[in-house]
Amino acid sequence: MTELLKNFVGGQWVEGRGPGTALHDPVTGAELVRVSSNGLDLPAAFAHARDTGGAALRGLSYAQRAAMLGAIVKVLQANRDAYFDIATANAGTVKNDSAVDIDGGIFTLGQYAKWGAALGDTKALRDGGAVKLSKEGGFQTQHVLVPNRGLALFINAFNFPAWGLWEKAAPALLSGVPVVVKPATATAWLMQRMVADVVAAGVLPAGALSIVCGSSVGLLDALTPFDVLSFTGSAETAATIRQHPAVAHHSVRTNIEADSVNSALLLPGATPGDPSFNLLVREVVREMTVKSGQKCTAIRRIFVPADLYDAVAEAIGAKLAKITVGNPRNETVRMGSLVSRAQFDGVTSGIAALRAETEVLHDGTQHGLVDADPRVAACLGPTLLGARNAEASPIVHELEVFGPAATLVAYRDVPHAHALVRRGGGSLVCSLYGPDDAALSDAALELAPAHGRVHIVTASVESQQTGHGNVMPQSLHGGPGRAGGGEELGGLRALGFYHRRSAIQADATLLDRLSALPFPA
Amino acid sequence: MTELLKNFVGGQWVEGRGPGTALHDPVTGAELVRVSSNGLDLPAAFAHARDTGGAALRGLSYAQRAAMLGAIVKVLQANRDAYFDIATANAGTVKNDSAVDIDGGIFTLGQYAKWGAALGDTKALRDGGAVKLSKEGGFQTQHVLVPNRGLALFINAFNFPAWGLWEKAAPALLSGVPVVVKPATATAWLMQRMVADVVAAGVLPAGALSIVCGSSVGLLDALTPFDVLSFTGSAETAATIRQHPAVAHHSVRTNIEADSVNSALLLPGATPGDPSFNLLVREVVREMTVKSGQKCTAIRRIFVPADLYDAVAEAIGAKLAKITVGNPRNETVRMGSLVSRAQFDGVTSGIAALRAETEVLHDGTQHGLVDADPRVAACLGPTLLGARNAEASPIVHELEVFGPAATLVAYRDVPHAHALVRRGGGSLVCSLYGPDDAALSDAALELAPAHGRVHIVTASVESQQTGHGNVMPQSLHGGPGRAGGGEELGGLRALGFYHRRSAIQADATLLDRLSALPFPA
Repeated sequence: MTELLKNFVGGQWVEGRGPGTALHDPVTGAELVRVSSNGLDLPAAFAHARDTGGAALRGLSYAQRAAMLGAIVKVLQANRDAYFDIATANAGTVKNDSAVDIDGGIFTLGQYAKWGAALGDTKALRDGGAVKLSKEGGFQTQHVLVPNRGLALFINAFNFPAWGLWEKAAPALLSGVPVVVKPATATAWLMQRMVADVVAAGVLPAGALSIVCGSSVGLLDALTPFDVLSFTGSAETAATIRQHPAVAHHSVRTNIEADSVNSALLLPGATPGDPSFNLLVREVVREMTVKSGQKCTAIRRIFVPADLYDAVAEAIGAKLAKITVGNPRNETVRMGSLVSRAQFDGVTSGIAALRAETEVLHDGTQHGLVDADPRVAACLGPTLLGARNAEASPIVHELEVFGPAATLVAYRDVPHAHALVRRGGGSLVCSLYGPDDAALSDAALELAPAHGRVHIVTASVESQQTGHGNVMPQSLHGGPGRAGGGEELGGLRALGFYHRRSAIQADATLLDRLSALPFPA
Repeated sequence: MTELLKNFVGGQWVEGRGPGTALHDPVTGAELVRVSSNGLDLPAAFAHARDTGGAALRGLSYAQRAAMLGAIVKVLQANRDAYFDIATANAGTVKNDSAVDIDGGIFTLGQYAKWGAALGDTKALRDGGAVKLSKEGGFQTQHVLVPNRGLALFINAFNFPAWGLWEKAAPALLSGVPVVVKPATATAWLMQRMVADVVAAGVLPAGALSIVCGSSVGLLDALTPFDVLSFTGSAETAATIRQHPAVAHHSVRTNIEADSVNSALLLPGATPGDPSFNLLVREVVREMTVKSGQKCTAIRRIFVPADLYDAVAEAIGAKLAKITVGNPRNETVRMGSLVSRAQFDGVTSGIAALRAETEVLHDGTQHGLVDADPRVAACLGPTLLGARNAEASPIVHELEVFGPAATLVAYRDVPHAHALVRRGGGSLVCSLYGPDDAALSDAALELAPAHGRVHIVTASVESQQTGHGNVMPQSLHGGPGRAGGGEELGGLRALGFYHRRSAIQADATLLDRLSALPFPA
């Protein structure tokens, strides 16, 4: 039997009961490790996090907590090679794709360490200035941001076991809020190892960071009114979480980042081969293939003027044809595997559903696999579908296929394009391409209400732009409606979720006594 | 048969089907008017609000929409006398209590008109400055706030038919978001009349403001992903709303302001008759009796040092004994009736439940009624209960009696007091009293995480302080956990709920083109 990974709860490493669930190498099918959360005393674990971890964290200043984040960065950097090995084995990703997760997580932690240091030696933040409530001005209101007195429960997605933890934990810990994280089972190994390294290094106070690997049963039931919950995953599970009695009855503050059908939009005026045309093609190919399209921000819909439909299809297809697919251990392979055979089956059936209403412009099943057995490996070539008549393909705006697949859609004019983008019902990100800056900035404001982020790629920033799908800690990550309605990152904005805003009304001179520093605007 | 009030939906006054539900005078029992929302085409009504109302509002600048709020203020001021008559008849409130609702609503609208004018002639707002994403600095991120492209549905409480509409509608309309409001049936008349007056005056674009009177059946089902929902009412209904499929599946952004067991806390060091002691007593009596205690912010729990328990009980009881109760039309009456006989029954049974674990310090049933028949009128004198041993009365922290009742609780020391306050599980407001400014400001930061507002009353602001229960538009209104987890008002902070925050990533010079003005910090 393979190793049964332990859970870290209540300040101890605890083995779950039973044989547990096995994690596999998605390329070879080999069993790697097992996880089980059966039999854990979650209410006691949560109480320890809240009472011991929360009190210890709140006893530190922002600058002290920021220094802790810096210490975590050092621990992770020291063990970086082991993380890449785990990612290759458990996620089937090539080195560049593993880096998006591992180095992305370390980078995000480092940013919050830097930003947090600037918050200084205080334990509460002022939100805006004091405002007069009486004509005389002697009685005023001062809003403050104070750390939540509960814990932060993270229920994470399988595609970012490293970054997915740290992009949430960095602002939570910086805010003084203890973290309990439940990784997705399929790829839980990497996150468990990172937590183990951080625990072993002793850089966090007891109770500040706990991990539960395996089933999520009982986690939500253990939540109480001052806790917060952050979920990343499918829209379906998100709805179940929202409706959970503990969440509904205790007003547990919830942040949800769900799947979405993100768009790339080429505005009118481009011609085949000009810079905006080429930038769109390159970005689409990158988004379809990085991490085998298993990014919640990946481009799923590509909108182009009807007269460019054929040229774009041909250009994307030509680049996709060159993508080598297979075992990530082979250096000639550009795109590794999906994280599991279950995901492979899901993506395959999703593509079949899309094909019922679209044409196939590039067929991923025609890619041969390098060093991988197609009967075992969860490897799949990239597939481009097409909807020349947008009105005939409603499924394109509804179904997210979480793999290397996207659909090209032709539009008539700009209002038609905007309406089609909005049919996604709210997405994480939309990228814009086009030759005219004024048209691009207008489209950005027009589409912003339906997106957490609008990413504009022009020739002037070709070498500097950070990528449609890359989530930069400086920018908001989340989106309305279908995308879950959440808000993460965005620099220090992320601290809002882990703080309670409160208005303190008092004598103006008494308000001066509040030992709180200004929140940076 | 009395008049059947019409609904204003789809730009028309529409009568609901059937006889409807009657609204009564809670003092005389007389039927006043009827309401019915049966048979309304809500999906069509909502589409009209979104498409016609939303487009028209978004076509205006903040300054133009602020001017509309100013125009609403004028309409309401011109019809103010009629509103007081309706309040007396339908809510049973004395003139001062009606003013809290009516003039409070007008004041709040006026404040947003003023603040909105300062936002200027733009249709989107910048949220912070642009931040570099590339080392070279050519690629940057700029967060913006853009109006939500859906509608705002308000499901309101019976206790504030006027203020409850305008404190929500002012920031919504200023944000460019159309409003559909459903008043609580028992007191729907006042809100319906106000909307009728505003519609008749033609100061809002078509579709900007709709009202549905009667049942709420079908309202939530008609919501779509870009809509927002704001609910004020019981924690029980709040949980049902959160779990509604449309809300859960469309990630409808929801703000909930639920009931809570708010506290007044007298810190150690006071002696009977000194200023902080007297200020507590006065504030408690006012909060227990204004609007017959039917304010979600009213003081329900009073925490005092154990050695002051008897003196505080005596002082509050002496003042309560002088409160005249009965028909609000009689000028000697200080406290009118509850809004309905159903509320009377609920409050009576709530007090009975509290009495099972507390002692009666002042018995409201001993108050005679002025000009009112106790068999008919929903009038009830103020009741003060007491828990000398806090540990023996857990119900005090759980049950909110929504009427003129509160419980005095003795505490041992400051940590005990804080722990008892927090047992409310999150409240809208806590007021603090005590002789020592440093102790007051420390307690404020310590209790802020459990409250949307902390209100400190000292002798220095005796004549200026705005009252424990009064919701000032400058300050946040809402609270965590039991209080619903919502955030309303707080000056321009209220606009956040009606805007979508989005990060626009682009060439730095392209970002300069965004026609958006800075959001005031």
